Amino acid sequence: MKEIEKMRHTLSHVLAAAVKELYPHAKFGIGPAIDDGFYYDIDFGDTKISDSDLNKIEKKMRGIIARKLPMVKRTASKSEALDWARDQKQDYKIELIEELPENEELTFYDMGDLFTDLCKGPHVKDLSQTGPFKLVRVAGAYWRGDEKRPMLTRIYGVAFDTEDELNTYLKRQEEAKKRDHRKLGKELDLFCFSDLVGVGLPLFTPRGTELRELLANYSLSLRGKEGFKKVWTPHITKTDLYKTSGHYAKFGDELFMVHSQVNGEDFAMKPMNCPHHTQIFASRPRTYREMPVRYMEATTDYRDEKTGELGGLSRVRSLTQDDSHVFCRKDQIKEEVAHLVNIVKELYATVGMQKLRARLSYRSDEDKYLGDKKLWDMAQNQIKQAAIDNGLEYYEQEGEAAFYGPKIDFMAEDAIGREHQLATIQLDFVMPERFGLEFTNEKGEKERPVMIHHATLGSIERFLSVFIEHTGGWFPFWCAPEQVRIVTINDKVSDYVAKITKVLDDIVLDKPLKYNELRYTIDDTSDSLSKKIKRATELKVPAILVVGPKDAEEGIVSIRLRDSEEKVKLAKLAEFLKELK
Amino acid sequence: MKEIEKMRHTLSHVLAAAVKELYPHAKFGIGPAIDDGFYYDIDFGDTKISDSDLNKIEKKMRGIIARKLPMVKRTASKSEALDWARDQKQDYKIELIEELPENEELTFYDMGDLFTDLCKGPHVKDLSQTGPFKLVRVAGAYWRGDEKRPMLTRIYGVAFDTEDELNTYLKRQEEAKKRDHRKLGKELDLFCFSDLVGVGLPLFTPRGTELRELLANYSLSLRGKEGFKKVWTPHITKTDLYKTSGHYAKFGDELFMVHSQVNGEDFAMKPMNCPHHTQIFASRPRTYREMPVRYMEATTDYRDEKTGELGGLSRVRSLTQDDSHVFCRKDQIKEEVAHLVNIVKELYATVGMQKLRARLSYRSDEDKYLGDKKLWDMAQNQIKQAAIDNGLEYYEQEGEAAFYGPKIDFMAEDAIGREHQLATIQLDFVMPERFGLEFTNEKGEKERPVMIHHATLGSIERFLSVFIEHTGGWFPFWCAPEQVRIVTINDKVSDYVAKITKVLDDIVLDKPLKYNELRYTIDDTSDSLSKKIKRATELKVPAILVVGPKDAEEGIVSIRLRDSEEKVKLAKLAEFLKELK
Repeated sequence: MKEIEKMRHTLSHVLAAAVKELYPHAKFGIGPAIDDGFYYDIDFGDTKISDSDLNKIEKKMRGIIARKLPMVKRTASKSEALDWARDQKQDYKIELIEELPENEELTFYDMGDLFTDLCKGPHVKDLSQTGPFKLVRVAGAYWRGDEKRPMLTRIYGVAFDTEDELNTYLKRQEEAKKRDHRKLGKELDLFCFSDLVGVGLPLFTPRGTELRELLANYSLSLRGKEGFKKVWTPHITKTDLYKTSGHYAKFGDELFMVHSQVNGEDFAMKPMNCPHHTQIFASRPRTYREMPVRYMEATTDYRDEKTGELGGLSRVRSLTQDDSHVFCRKDQIKEEVAHLVNIVKELYATVGMQKLRARLSYRSDEDKYLGDKKLWDMAQNQIKQAAIDNGLEYYEQEGEAAFYGPKIDFMAEDAIGREHQLATIQLDFVMPERFGLEFTNEKGEKERPVMIHHATLGSIERFLSVFIEHTGGWFPFWCAPEQVRIVTINDKVSDYVAKITKVLDDIVLDKPLKYNELRYTIDDTSDSLSKKIKRATELKVPAILVVGPKDAEEGIVSIRLRDSEEKVKLAKLAEFLKELK
Repeated sequence: MKEIEKMRHTLSHVLAAAVKELYPHAKFGIGPAIDDGFYYDIDFGDTKISDSDLNKIEKKMRGIIARKLPMVKRTASKSEALDWARDQKQDYKIELIEELPENEELTFYDMGDLFTDLCKGPHVKDLSQTGPFKLVRVAGAYWRGDEKRPMLTRIYGVAFDTEDELNTYLKRQEEAKKRDHRKLGKELDLFCFSDLVGVGLPLFTPRGTELRELLANYSLSLRGKEGFKKVWTPHITKTDLYKTSGHYAKFGDELFMVHSQVNGEDFAMKPMNCPHHTQIFASRPRTYREMPVRYMEATTDYRDEKTGELGGLSRVRSLTQDDSHVFCRKDQIKEEVAHLVNIVKELYATVGMQKLRARLSYRSDEDKYLGDKKLWDMAQNQIKQAAIDNGLEYYEQEGEAAFYGPKIDFMAEDAIGREHQLATIQLDFVMPERFGLEFTNEKGEKERPVMIHHATLGSIERFLSVFIEHTGGWFPFWCAPEQVRIVTINDKVSDYVAKITKVLDDIVLDKPLKYNELRYTIDDTSDSLSKKIKRATELKVPAILVVGPKDAEEGIVSIRLRDSEEKVKLAKLAEFLKELK
């Protein structure tokens, strides 16, 4: 375990110790280290704990840390541990201990004589070694993640090695809060939820639909240039498909099951599209001449996520993938992967997230991997070569491959420095085997293709959650749902507005997406100019054309951009707008 | 009952009489008149009956008809009827009779002394009054439509008043058989089915996907011009949505139910989109200024059809609707309906089905209709006026309205004279009420909008089944999945092929769909020219460019169209192709 994780873990004990002093009847669940910090799940009984209590607890923690108490490990038998837990009335600990095997040697950590916890460790030597930290929020969490068990209070803290790192993190969090896509989604009228439809099932308004379609179309258009063809598959299937693919045995419990009341048959909603796509490949004989066969489909998959884990668009039950599958010969892997790598680079550069890191995930020596070892070696070589040839910043990780093949996962950095795992390229030696896919090679023999799974945006919903926060809702001009709004100063300018709209009607952007007709609206209501501008600004319309009699007289257009104002001659308006980023 | 229906019904008795003579142990189910003819469901015991037996049965029928036997009605008590059925060992008749009330007066029809059947009638007076007929096919049919009951043999016959009508019908059927969309779907590689995915769940190949997208995009583009905005909604919902809409009480048994194994929650797959769309309308306050609000979405609905009723694309479980909903004020109905009527006319003219009949379906005096009678009268007036103003061929029908409002259904005639009910425009006074939809009017008061449901293609899958048969697979140039194929005469023409593709790459059709880039492929394999042309012709590629050295020398392009061959100068090629219909 890394030092910083030990330190964060120790802080979770300090948190528990502080809580115990302030709330002697608190019962403790578990308290691990996590990315950026730690938490502890605590049952406060009838006492309600909110963010406003965090200051007090944090103060108590700092007092404990100042005592530089040592963290001392000691072992105990199961029955000793049970005695301790019963004596302390720690019901959750009792439950955890009771589940352990009879002869298990357990470990405790004593924080001086102040606080003891059942814990595997490791921890830092003493509290002087804990870094700068802050308690950040309170949330509810079911005991053991089970909605039928009690709801505990989870207190989250963050901790780093240095004050600088902590401050950077907190500042970023503050910035992220302002950009929260759930808040912006509402303010910009992009998507909504309905209690009648359910959590995790967003509905997209016209503006949000425009945005998601532009992004999806752009993503698919890049693949279209590389020979990918759209296909269409239904959202349900007989479970036979997943029994054949092997998904049923592995993930059967996580499928949304569909029941036919009319025929009594059972179906499943598709959580991915690869098995469906194999059926199109298999629908007629294939020869070497048409390989690689490349399918793509922006289609919605359904995953049965836990209700508690759903929020905004980050995690949804209805996730639309810009999915694709290549069926190719083994010696075509490198070239196909190279195309996909370039597509990923191009798309993420376009949306302003050019800083990409790629993880090349290989097999380890464990025997959980399916498919011929030689094939794996060759394929891993090919994806590495594709990464090098295409100038990817990459690192290699053994043991991170999927059981069916090696893969490349892309981590993209957003405007406030957070990394998100979005695009992926995965080789698959198993599914072609399971579905008996084949093509006839030059020698007239049957040969098995390799499959390459790829999504550039990943889940469009999740990408949107990142993209909205990355841009803070100020979308690039080409994909802003409303790109231009004309606001009139008074009702004397309708002729001039007509001249302007004549120009706007003819504007079609060609980059990065072709045939992208300009989207504009006109606000010529009798409201005050300031009210009209405020309305357009709140919607983060990138270009607001303020039209008054003086503009009409002079044949110019006054344009308010996000950070500047411009005056442009009407004859130059189209050119100006086409150049906006 | 119409005379022709009586006559067809009588022929079903003649069919039974003939079968009884040929197969004395046959047991009879029911034998009604249907559109174009009649059938009888018969249990032949262990004897297998196929289409090849029809001639023999038909001959026997003609012999019976030649005897001009009278059809005589007589009444009987339930117990007399039971005695007869038991004596005849007619188990199915016994079952039918046993279910009748004790005091019911039953009727029999005697065909002379040859054949007696339990039957309500009416029939023609004697067999001389039967028209020309033909037995056409044999199919399986579960007794009483119940898959758990025995499978009977259904013999279908067709019958008309005149030989001419019969021959026209049979010729049309023959033509339809050639155009069978299931056959063409396979030959043209448009869609496929997989046993692993299930019946009624088509998968669309690249060519079929191209076709369906072009049609859907064209359909939506017409509405886009009229202010409709795309929205996006998930394919499942909590049942609460349908409980509120009222669909659950009415159609709950027909829903595909979705079960979450993770959370134990129940959802339903959406069989229509209106309730989802109301939730987007309701997601923020609305004012009179933004009315009408117009949403559209090409999205897939799921309907739990009986397995036996599924075939090709005519009836599927996954049906994609080019759906839309207008939320408008009561005084905006006429104008909104007029827009939609024009869209229907334009689309069907474009696809060559300009002959449209519209049925205006009104309420009757029954009290099954919801909503204020005055509102109905006003709305019926508005849709009628819209029909007249837009020159629709229409007829009015009382009692055919949906319970929630009056509607217009469009019947389109295809190339071989069959009528198909496809587009629909439906007013809805009920759903806005149930979902409490409202907007603020000029007076600052809350007002309830009216909803208008509309689909132009209807279900895209069903439309495709019609369109493929209507065109016989020779799609209009603009929507042919592959519009142009270059086939080379030998391998000396690659430079000239490059010149041609440079022209093709720049061709973008603008009508009827904008930004429609030319789709072409090149067949420069070493196969013989005739083989290459055959391949392209089988796929019904509308324009085959046959490129040889002589063409290169002369700078011309030889084009094979469906019914002609043309030679066009390379400089005129783009123009020529753009003009193709």
